[in-house]
Amino acid sequence: MAMTMTQKILAKHAGLPEVKAGQLIEAKLDLVMGNDITAPVAIKEFEKAGFTRVFDKDRVCIVLDHFTPNKDIKAAQQSSESRAFAKKHGLTNFFDVGNMGIEHALLPEKGLVAPGETVIGADSHTCTYGALGAFSTGVGSTDMAAGMAAGVAWFKVPSAIRFNLIGKLRPWVGGKDVILHIIGRIGVDGALYKSMEFTGPGVKELTMDDRFTIANMAIEAGAKNGIFPVDQAVRDYVKDRVTRPWEAFEADPDAEYDEEITIDLSEIEPTVSLPHLPSNAQKVSQVRGLKIDQSVIGSCTNGRLGDLRIAASILKGRKVAPGVRCIVIPATQQVYLDALAEGLIEIFVKAGCAVSTPTCGPCIGGHMGVLYKGERAVATTNRNFVGRMGHTESEIILASPAVAAASAVAGVVASPDEL
Amino acid sequence: MAMTMTQKILAKHAGLPEVKAGQLIEAKLDLVMGNDITAPVAIKEFEKAGFTRVFDKDRVCIVLDHFTPNKDIKAAQQSSESRAFAKKHGLTNFFDVGNMGIEHALLPEKGLVAPGETVIGADSHTCTYGALGAFSTGVGSTDMAAGMAAGVAWFKVPSAIRFNLIGKLRPWVGGKDVILHIIGRIGVDGALYKSMEFTGPGVKELTMDDRFTIANMAIEAGAKNGIFPVDQAVRDYVKDRVTRPWEAFEADPDAEYDEEITIDLSEIEPTVSLPHLPSNAQKVSQVRGLKIDQSVIGSCTNGRLGDLRIAASILKGRKVAPGVRCIVIPATQQVYLDALAEGLIEIFVKAGCAVSTPTCGPCIGGHMGVLYKGERAVATTNRNFVGRMGHTESEIILASPAVAAASAVAGVVASPDEL
Repeated sequence: MAMTMTQKILAKHAGLPEVKAGQLIEAKLDLVMGNDITAPVAIKEFEKAGFTRVFDKDRVCIVLDHFTPNKDIKAAQQSSESRAFAKKHGLTNFFDVGNMGIEHALLPEKGLVAPGETVIGADSHTCTYGALGAFSTGVGSTDMAAGMAAGVAWFKVPSAIRFNLIGKLRPWVGGKDVILHIIGRIGVDGALYKSMEFTGPGVKELTMDDRFTIANMAIEAGAKNGIFPVDQAVRDYVKDRVTRPWEAFEADPDAEYDEEITIDLSEIEPTVSLPHLPSNAQKVSQVRGLKIDQSVIGSCTNGRLGDLRIAASILKGRKVAPGVRCIVIPATQQVYLDALAEGLIEIFVKAGCAVSTPTCGPCIGGHMGVLYKGERAVATTNRNFVGRMGHTESEIILASPAVAAASAVAGVVASPDEL
Repeated sequence: MAMTMTQKILAKHAGLPEVKAGQLIEAKLDLVMGNDITAPVAIKEFEKAGFTRVFDKDRVCIVLDHFTPNKDIKAAQQSSESRAFAKKHGLTNFFDVGNMGIEHALLPEKGLVAPGETVIGADSHTCTYGALGAFSTGVGSTDMAAGMAAGVAWFKVPSAIRFNLIGKLRPWVGGKDVILHIIGRIGVDGALYKSMEFTGPGVKELTMDDRFTIANMAIEAGAKNGIFPVDQAVRDYVKDRVTRPWEAFEADPDAEYDEEITIDLSEIEPTVSLPHLPSNAQKVSQVRGLKIDQSVIGSCTNGRLGDLRIAASILKGRKVAPGVRCIVIPATQQVYLDALAEGLIEIFVKAGCAVSTPTCGPCIGGHMGVLYKGERAVATTNRNFVGRMGHTESEIILASPAVAAASAVAGVVASPDEL
């Protein structure tokens, strides 16, 4: 039976010759991930269930990234509990302050995810690793607990929508604009419990950072996962990072899709999503001029080196507009170091940006840039739900690093070509 | 009548030929300062009292440094109220995220304090500027409100203790060790409502950063202010920073002091203050080996370029010990840029430190490194009171940047010469 890319990965991990959409399977996990918010809950479940050992100390990963460096005593407790568990079970991949990054940027960077693998994480944006041709998805803390203990998880095999990417990107358009455009087109439930499989000649036009951004936001269309083919760019990315054997899976040519949607990359303009849903996508050209109070450049969606390069190319020699706070957060310590070496950090500080150590912080209204009533931010983050970055009467406009940087300089929502 | 250095400054600002200890005077203010915690309270008092104008828009200064970038909605509200007031009154010296620093490092750096001036700030460590030969002291928010409106404040003229500094500092000993040693000797109320006047041949052995650190912690001995003579080092410091005229004041040779204490700098070893009082000073050699969970290098006490240079000289090519979070916070954006240019930031990140944008954060248990129950930090901050950095059952050991950096590497309280 013909299978999609995701179905092939799941069949392999379930030890089955084939699976079909809707089937319930138990699949082996290559990695189980949690963070400082979700791991403590999972640890409690793990211990309550009487589990005493993790299935593989190299394959259970905890990253302290959400409210770190600890923003309050509650956060300090969550970090402390995660630390104790990691120590007790000898976890190889435990990442703490100073030696960390935002999980979804960190894991690929550290070679902890390879093509064809199956990964669950107690964080909704775990779908990011689909950029590497892996099946990865967000789960609740109870699933994380069971996954940590047994190294398996139950899944309902998803059906899929095939996105046929064609054409080339315009200047200042990147992965973020593509995914906001797509979510704008299909809606926040447009891919509910489905795979979003990205294929077509346009894939090669996308950098790995573009693909991570797109896969990261698959969940914002309700998808179970987003996934890209394993092409040369993926192979180059994992070459020096992953030393264990891995396998690339391809969708069968006659695989069945619920729908096929063609996306002409050349038609996409710089795009933002207005409050309060990622699906409220608009061309920047249609909404420019909206006053902003804050610009956030970072997050698991857009805090990679390529993102910072784009932002720096706009901020170089310019100043953040008076009255605007521009907060730049490299996604990992390695991204920070690379940005440092390229002079990007200097550009940001000279432009009047606050540069933070890696943290999810403002994206979840956690710290490092919480909004007050009536304030509006442009952010390269992934969710603009009511109150997500602070006060319920604040607003978030989702954007690319290019638009976030240009808006920081302009003081209003702006495209780089307007500066 | 013979006067101390502080008394001379106060007499001049009160328009009196002389003042004596205990006298109540009204003095003109050269600068009135508040931050994101204290300014909103002062603003409320200001408005409740019916004031409509600040006395001088160039001389009322607000710095958003404590809980910024906003750590929660309450902090966002405080910033928002400060911002609105600064805008309404056209304050020249309003410092917001990305264009700021920790107030007591920022104001001298920006040339907002000159020798001989009188400054109040709604923050207890306002006494820092005594390093420049200014009279500066912390006040409550009500005094700040009145000061903003009228440009004057009432003071009880302080008596003074004269600290006669002699000798030269040993290697790895700096201003922090000196002031912890002094507070250990005289106690946390050893200079209650007095001036601590630092004089003697040892003064020239102290860098400006050393002097800022010492004056900063005068309040930890209960002092009204700490003050240094205006020597060439001070003149060099203000030369390119202060363009307005200023006046150096000297104590009369026959000025009366409550006490004279000689401090032989050459006798001071690397010093820490154990929990929970700054006066619990001990030589590092006597307490080394105490396990730590966190090291904080920064704050208004020790976040200047000289401090970061010392810390970097120890962290260079080394790694923060496993299980220790080392958080480095340049005190101002300029310090950040200078540290960047000198390669210090790279050294910190490579060593496994988290480098934050300027903020008071962990010093007051605000954010960026809050401690949990049972945790212990070495910190270059100024107060180790119960619960100051987080949980009431956590501990803070005050130390110099050298000892904080060495301890981060060792994982225990350590002196750099032990590494």
